[in-house]
Amino acid sequence: MKTQITKTLNGLDLKQMTDTVAALKDNPSLAHFEFRTRNRWVNGGENRSTIQGFYGAGVEDESRSEPFEFTNGEPPVLLGGNEGANPVEFLLHALAGCVTTTTVLHAAARGIQIKSLSTELDGNIDVQGLLDLDDSVPVGYEQIRIRMHIEADCSDEELDDLLSFARNHSPVCNTVCRPVPVVLERVVAQSKAA
Amino acid sequence: MKTQITKTLNGLDLKQMTDTVAALKDNPSLAHFEFRTRNRWVNGGENRSTIQGFYGAGVEDESRSEPFEFTNGEPPVLLGGNEGANPVEFLLHALAGCVTTTTVLHAAARGIQIKSLSTELDGNIDVQGLLDLDDSVPVGYEQIRIRMHIEADCSDEELDDLLSFARNHSPVCNTVCRPVPVVLERVVAQSKAA
Repeated sequence: MKTQITKTLNGLDLKQMTDTVAALKDNPSLAHFEFRTRNRWVNGGENRSTIQGFYGAGVEDESRSEPFEFTNGEPPVLLGGNEGANPVEFLLHALAGCVTTTTVLHAAARGIQIKSLSTELDGNIDVQGLLDLDDSVPVGYEQIRIRMHIEADCSDEELDDLLSFARNHSPVCNTVCRPVPVVLERVVAQSKAA
Repeated sequence: MKTQITKTLNGLDLKQMTDTVAALKDNPSLAHFEFRTRNRWVNGGENRSTIQGFYGAGVEDESRSEPFEFTNGEPPVLLGGNEGANPVEFLLHALAGCVTTTTVLHAAARGIQIKSLSTELDGNIDVQGLLDLDDSVPVGYEQIRIRMHIEADCSDEELDDLLSFARNHSPVCNTVCRPVPVVLERVVAQSKAA
């Protein structure tokens, strides 16, 4: 448990940060992580994910006693009942969080104290792609914009350098702005009693 | 409100589906959607998003009386306290949901009834990229695998064709597997009283 003696910056334990980086430099295989989700279709545009275990730092993580659960839904205009935010909105949530955490982490590494940070994201999609109505339309987001409000104890030049660095080192941002292979495999059911 | 007279397949209203496609063919500008998220940093790896309004089908949507709220966190090994799933896990949730909904939608369009559908996703990340320890390591996911269990009233060949089609027409899947530009802009604060 953290005590007031622990030296933190932006809510991050600086000793744990330094120790983690040193351990990874010493043994880069500890940097391999595997994250996971299980999802079950409910009805229409509603489906539900559970997220709990992952592999990282050389071990299977056991820090979560209960899974996180999230429901995807769709609004009425997209044939749903607002059972949850929809998948393309969850993607924006993931992107906002990752760019924020990457900014806060590298600020701490640079000795910059963040006073406040918030973002507004928007992204455009032409659903003709999803519906297969026009082959010339991109199926995914056409572009995503992030407007960041940030206050910190450094100059504007240092802030701009930090933000550019965070954008280039955010895993979700890089998963979006660079091509990442997605393999979809159908699991063939074992023979079973009807 | 739907009644038993409404003809649905896979939980989707077939008349609404047909009407939507006809309206978009008639006026493709209705297909332009803008989705949004607002996010606020809390502390360390914790931050929170609200998702409510979006623009689509030519109007600002007002179907949600309350915003959805989601919390990003990090596990202890990534310097957090499991305040929520982490951003790269939320991305997997978004991807699972989008591939599922796209499959269910196009199954309905083809007259295929889905009996059950679930997915298991995993993706690999080397956090040396995030931490700027090795320039040769990809910063985002290296690859994401989706294993789908699906039962439907059609042949295996029709299922495989449906899944291939869904993968190619899922907006989140295409945002991941193709490059999508992300623009990060710092909002310069107006002068204000301290």
